[in-house]
Formats: sequence, C-alpha cells, structure tokens
Amino acid sequence: MDFRHRHLLGIEPLAPAEITTILDLAERYVELNRGPRKHADALAGLTQINMFFENSTRTQASFELAGQRLGADVMNMQMQASSIKKGETLIDTAMTLNAMHPDLLVVRHPHSGAVDLLAQKVNCAVLNAGDGRHEHPTQALLDALTIRRAKGRLHRLNIAICGDIAHSRVARSNILLLGKMESRIRLIGPPTLMPAGVADWGVEVYDNMREGLAGADVVMMLRLQKERMDGAFIPSEREYYHRYGLDAEKLGHAKDDAIVMHPGPMNRGVEIDGTLADDINRSVIQEQVEMGVAVRMAAMDLLARNLRSVPQEVTA
Amino acid sequence: MDFRHRHLLGIEPLAPAEITTILDLAERYVELNRGPRKHADALAGLTQINMFFENSTRTQASFELAGQRLGADVMNMQMQASSIKKGETLIDTAMTLNAMHPDLLVVRHPHSGAVDLLAQKVNCAVLNAGDGRHEHPTQALLDALTIRRAKGRLHRLNIAICGDIAHSRVARSNILLLGKMESRIRLIGPPTLMPAGVADWGVEVYDNMREGLAGADVVMMLRLQKERMDGAFIPSEREYYHRYGLDAEKLGHAKDDAIVMHPGPMNRGVEIDGTLADDINRSVIQEQVEMGVAVRMAAMDLLARNLRSVPQEVTA
Amino acid sequence: MDFRHRHLLGIEPLAPAEITTILDLAERYVELNRGPRKHADALAGLTQINMFFENSTRTQASFELAGQRLGADVMNMQMQASSIKKGETLIDTAMTLNAMHPDLLVVRHPHSGAVDLLAQKVNCAVLNAGDGRHEHPTQALLDALTIRRAKGRLHRLNIAICGDIAHSRVARSNILLLGKMESRIRLIGPPTLMPAGVADWGVEVYDNMREGLAGADVVMMLRLQKERMDGAFIPSEREYYHRYGLDAEKLGHAKDDAIVMHPGPMNRGVEIDGTLADDINRSVIQEQVEMGVAVRMAAMDLLARNLRSVPQEVTA
Repeated sequence: MDFRHRHLLGIEPLAPAEITTILDLAERYVELNRGPRKHADALAGLTQINMFFENSTRTQASFELAGQRLGADVMNMQMQASSIKKGETLIDTAMTLNAMHPDLLVVRHPHSGAVDLLAQKVNCAVLNAGDGRHEHPTQALLDALTIRRAKGRLHRLNIAICGDIAHSRVARSNILLLGKMESRIRLIGPPTLMPAGVADWGVEVYDNMREGLAGADVVMMLRLQKERMDGAFIPSEREYYHRYGLDAEKLGHAKDDAIVMHPGPMNRGVEIDGTLADDINRSVIQEQVEMGVAVRMAAMDLLARNLRSVPQEVTA
Repeated sequence: MDFRHRHLLGIEPLAPAEITTILDLAERYVELNRGPRKHADALAGLTQINMFFENSTRTQASFELAGQRLGADVMNMQMQASSIKKGETLIDTAMTLNAMHPDLLVVRHPHSGAVDLLAQKVNCAVLNAGDGRHEHPTQALLDALTIRRAKGRLHRLNIAICGDIAHSRVARSNILLLGKMESRIRLIGPPTLMPAGVADWGVEVYDNMREGLAGADVVMMLRLQKERMDGAFIPSEREYYHRYGLDAEKLGHAKDDAIVMHPGPMNRGVEIDGTLADDINRSVIQEQVEMGVAVRMAAMDLLARNLRSVPQEVTA
Repeated sequence: MDFRHRHLLGIEPLAPAEITTILDLAERYVELNRGPRKHADALAGLTQINMFFENSTRTQASFELAGQRLGADVMNMQMQASSIKKGETLIDTAMTLNAMHPDLLVVRHPHSGAVDLLAQKVNCAVLNAGDGRHEHPTQALLDALTIRRAKGRLHRLNIAICGDIAHSRVARSNILLLGKMESRIRLIGPPTLMPAGVADWGVEVYDNMREGLAGADVVMMLRLQKERMDGAFIPSEREYYHRYGLDAEKLGHAKDDAIVMHPGPMNRGVEIDGTLADDINRSVIQEQVEMGVAVRMAAMDLLARNLRSVPQEVTA
C-alpha cells in the first residue's frame, strides 16, 4: 500500500506509484460491478456525504452508486436549497456537516480552490468532484484506467486533448496525470480557448485538428462549455464543428487503432459526430462511465483505509 | 415459475398465468410489509435506478420503498436537473446510466413509447412507471390485486371505469389486464374524453353514470387530468362533478357491495365526493396504495430472478 | 424504560424522567458516532419517511443520518414537488404514505399544529421536526444534552435565551424543557420580538442584554427570522447587532464559564459575532449539531421500541 493521503483534492500531489495503486484496485471493482451481486463492505458503517454546489447528474450518480456498493450510508445534500440561502457561509455549512461525523465528503464547487479550503476545515476525507477550472481528479483517473485497459500501458502514448482547454478542469487533471505517467500530450483547439501560459506546460499546442491528430493513440474530446464562457469569443456551433469537431475524416489522421474519448455529456454535432461517438470499434465513451464508478470505489476505499490507519497529522 | 420476461413495459405482452404469478407473489409481500420487520434480500447487491421524467411523488415513493425493502441499492435521478439540460439526449442519458451496471431501471416519461425505446438500448431490466397515454402496468397490477382481495376473483366481474379515459394510461392498462382475466368492462364519461377507436376495444361505453354503474362490482374513478388537456373541451369542475363525479346517490346504482377505487391523487369534489372516498366500507383507495408497494416488490423480484437465469437473448 | 409515548410531538407532554431517558440513551449514540463504525440495528427492517414541507438542510440531514446509522430504510419526500400540487390535501398525502406502512414519519410544517393533526391520522410514530411557532422538540433535547455535558446538570442553571423569541419554536420548546428540569430562564430581546402573554410564562424578561446576561451559565442566541416577520417591526441589522448581538464585551457580563449556543444557521454579525461563534473555549455550537444526530437516534430508537411493545390505544 503506497497511497498515504488523507484527501483526494487533485492529481498534482499524487506520485505515479499512487496512481497505479488506485487503478489496480479499481480493476477489482470493475469485476465486482460486472458480477451478479455488486456489493462489498469496505465502507460499511461509514457515512458519505455528497455536497454538489454545481449540478452534475452523472458525477453525483457515479459517486452515489460507488458508495452504496461499498456499503456506506450515502447522503446527498441539495446545496441550492441549503442554509446558504439563510445567510450561512460555505465554511459554516461544511463545519455543520463535519460535526455530524461523516467519513467521506464528496464536493463539487464552481470556484477553483473552494474544495481545498473546505478540506482544511473538516476532520473527514474530502474528495474533489470538480472545482472551477482547477482539478477533477477522479475524471483523470477514470480516463487513465480506460486508456490503460485499451492500450495496455500509460507511458509513451501520444494523447491528443481537443477543444475548450481553457475552461476545462478535466483537461488540466488529465495533463497532470498523463505527464506524470510519461505520455506525450498535444492540445488542439482555437487559440481563444487555450489557457494563458500554456507554452510553459510541456505540451505541444495545435490550432489544426489534422496536424494535431497525426499519429495519436488517444483522442480525448472535451465538451464546449458555453456556460463558462462569459465574455470570451464564442464560435458558432457550426463553425466550431467544421474546424474542431471530431468526425471520421479527421480521426483518419490519428493511428488506425486510436481510441475516442469524451467525459460527457456530449454535444453531438458540436464537438463530436454522433455516429462516431456510438462506434464501439473506436469510441470508449461508455467504458469511461463504467470505469468512473470503479475508480471512485477504489479512491474511497483507499481514503477510508487511511482514515483508520494514518494519524490525523499526516495530511495531503 | 412462468414469468419469463426481461422487462415489464406493459400489460399487453403478459399472459393471464403470468399476471397471477405476480399477484400471488405480491400477496406474500403484503404480509411482509404488515409485519414488524419489513425486509427481504431478493435484491441484495443489486442496483435500482429510478428515472422519473415526470414528477410523481407517490409512484416514485412506492418503487423506492419496494426496492429498499428488498435490499437493493436504490438511486433516484433528478431528471429535470440532469444532463439533458446540457444538450444530452434521452438515449445518451440511458446509455450513461446503463454503463454504471444497474440491474433495474424504473422509468416514467411523458411520451408514449419512450420507455420501450429506452429498454431496447440497455442491458438491465426496465420497468415502465407510466409512459404518456400508453401503459402504467404496475398500476393495473395493484388494482387487480386490490380487486382480487375484495372480490375473491378477477373473472366475471362488472367493472366500471369512469372519467377521463382518453388521457389515461391507467385506464388503458386496466382494460388490457381485466380483459385478459375475463371481466366485463364499461367505460363511462363524456364523449369528448373517450379515446378515438374505443368502439373496437370490446368494451361497453356509456355517457350516463347511472346507466353505466347499474350492477357494477367495481367502480374505478380516474383523475381529471387537466394538465394533459391542451386544446380539448374542458368541462367546468362543477358541471363535471354534477354529471360524472361519484357520490353516494350515483353509487347506489351499482351493486350493494360494489367497491370504489381511485389511483390518486384525488381531486375531491371534482371526480369523487370526499366523504365517499374516506368511507372504509366502500372505498379501497388506501388499500390500493398498500398493494402498490407489494406489487412492485413482486415485479422487481421476478425480473431480478430472470436477470440471473434467462439468457439475454430471450427478451420480452 | 419510562418513555411510553407513541409520538414525539413536543416537549410539553414529556415528564422530566422521560427527558432524562432520552438524553441517557443519546449519550450512548454520541459514542457510537465518534467510533470507527457508526452503525447499530435498532431500526433494521423499519421504514422512516422524512416529510419536510419547509426546507431545512441541516435538520433533515440530521434525521436522515440518524435513521441510516440505525439501519432504517430512509426515504425523503420532496414535498414541494409532491401531489399537493395536483390538488391533494395534507391529510391525503399523509394517508397515502401511511398506507405504505412506514414506521417513523418525521415531519416539518410551516403551520403550528399541522404535525399534531397529521399524527392523529396515521398508524406510525410521528416526530415533529418543527411546526410553525409551536414546538421543535428534538432541538430542545439536543440543546439540553449539550448543556448537561458542559455543565454536568440541567437543574438550577441560569439560562439566557436571546433575540427573536416571538417567532421561535426553538425558544418555546427550550423554555418548556428547561422549566421542567428546574432551571431559571431569562428571555432577552426587543419588546416587539417578545410573544404576547410572556408575563405568564414564569420567566424573567429583559430588554437589555447586559442586565439579562448577568450571572448566566448558558447564553442561547436565536436566529433573527426575517422570513417570518411579515408586518412586524424589523430593526436594521446594524442596530440589532449593536443592541442585541452577542460579542465578547456583552458576554463578559455572564459567568466566566458561560457557554454560547446557537441553533443555526447563524447570521454572523447580526445576532452573533463571528469570532465568538468560532471560539471553542466558549462556543458549543458545533457540539450542538453533533448532539442533534445522537438525540434523534435516541428518540427514534425509543419510539420504535414502543411501536413493538405498546398497544396502539396508548397514545401520547
């Protein structure tokens, strides 16, 4: 066991061996979830609270099922309807829940850094389910598991991440993880959707899909996050699809066995062609969802083990 | 065991012996639910997801309790808040949930046929909790159980279904079920609320409550579904109650031991007199709710058994 | 065992020995909740339904966790989205849920007396989670447990309750409980926020914080409930804080070891200074939340025991 953290706040603090530990345990939960009785007792008698300050049906459902299948008592907080309306602060809300002795707190928040702040105030393990443009570690872990199962390894792959990089915590966590595992990353998208300072990230940057996809093993499409683009240049969907949408022709520039990924929910006909998304010979989009439940089970299992064995002074 | 279906999408594909199988098993769950510890493990280690695209507090609660009492991990999806808002299609949402390996998917949808379509795309068992004007099979099954307990049989009864037939999937599923069980059905209501083609359904049609109720064993009232009547003639509530609302005087034309049913929620003073609805000598409305939990437990138990024993090629 | 009630509707019908019974059992659940595996089976096989007609994230979460940790099947009803919109009455909703055989019904309602009314109609145990300005018994019990742990006793204490007494069911339940336990109560607040008839309550009434706090063992602040003050005189928040907000200076008039309480959610800078609220040497606000889960576990455990042993005729 070489996973010694108290929280899972991001990919940044994880060592490559720790990432491998999570993925290896997740493989076992993949098997459990495919079997006739999908239940283990790793979290029996523990309390998991999901605090989603941003709606996310799929991520919340994935964490909820993961906790239930491990035997946890799982409670969803409806944060929009919460005491925050009555004038309570984020920290007061967290402290209140903390006093109820949860063991695992799964938090999504629209502001970068809010989850880290919250983790400093509570006694339990905190999992970041996405904070602003910062990190979304379980998404990067499920993507890594999907890639490893398809390609047999995580190192020395050519991985293209395409689209709205600037607004994407998914891209950021994936770049961190895949860099640690020694794969080569290319970012492809319009310059207006590239983050400031990308030149220093140790990645290749392309404006042209066909050039960027040449020789890629993995093509990771991102969702065009219109709701986050206040003020920025927004291309028309038609123009965007023409230049950056993935279709069979553009995919032809990647390797013959390149896989297609998308974190969902998809805008069909905007960032990806619907037929390609459904092509089970190329697309691993459904498998990403499946891996999501398994990776979250593994992460919560490992954090719960540390809750019992690691003194509270040792924090991530 | 003669229930061999993979899904429960409607009453239409069920044979009379299969209906009896469900009702017989439900009787055992009625006893369990009345006992001091209401728990079985028929669904232990299985995952049930409730996807309600239409709000229905009572039906969703009934399915949720049924699953919990059988030991399932039950998850409610809030479909209004879901990814559908982010541009995802119904099928994408279903495929995403399917990738999380649920065993039972309980679906309500405002469009007729949407649940059948969804069932073709997923690997798990699908239960139709009401789709448009099409079917609501568990409602017909709980009504049948209630009638069988009150009358000792389901055949050769005179059953009057009264009110807004045109908009009612409850009426449609009940007509199918009670016809299969060889009872005689009369539909009573204003001609504007009768479905097109009712002349071919093998039922008697009445515009006059007193004539239609003469000699009835069972009087099944329907809710006036104002929210579905866009464009249609809408009678005033007062006029409707005067002509079609069930009260003690009109019920006097039915048999002395006729029972009164309503699927809920009731509009008191519109389709039924409040005092009559509460008269435990005539009304079995509360028992219908009780039977609902038991029938849903039986249906989910049987489907889960088939998940384990029937090859996936054998589908309903 | 000297707790013989069928429902927990208020503090009013409880004898002092019964209050002690609840608190003593709650102490055991405090220990359970602080341990590594927080699970008991007191409610295994039982069904708990939470019906909150008023939003309350913290109270609902507390009851939900309490039930889950005791092994109950817990179901939250979203009462805003409920059948009540379709024209169903409160009583019809309650009767419908009752027919599903819940064992415990936890109800919050904006109208005083609504929970008592509902309790008369159902077969299960009802817990009042707050009704209008009437009672909030589990809040008073958790406050009592918090005080008893800090002070070693509940009798012969000087307890100051400060702020918006008129709109507060928390104040009312606390006054009833602490009076039964033979503590002395002072109410402090602007005369416009004192309830009519307070002169007959057997308490001391103060308009001046410094006078009222002199020699107090316990200082219980209330939330300024602006949402309930239609028509009443509303002081500006700044003026209110100046005269009635608790800060270190005003607290200096109480005993040196006086504890500070607040039922939450807090309006920092309105009824209480934020720094004081966070001062773990004086404030027991987080411990109140912790005691809330334990007290609710104890109350539900005791009611469930009575469900099994007390004939249904013996009601509270």
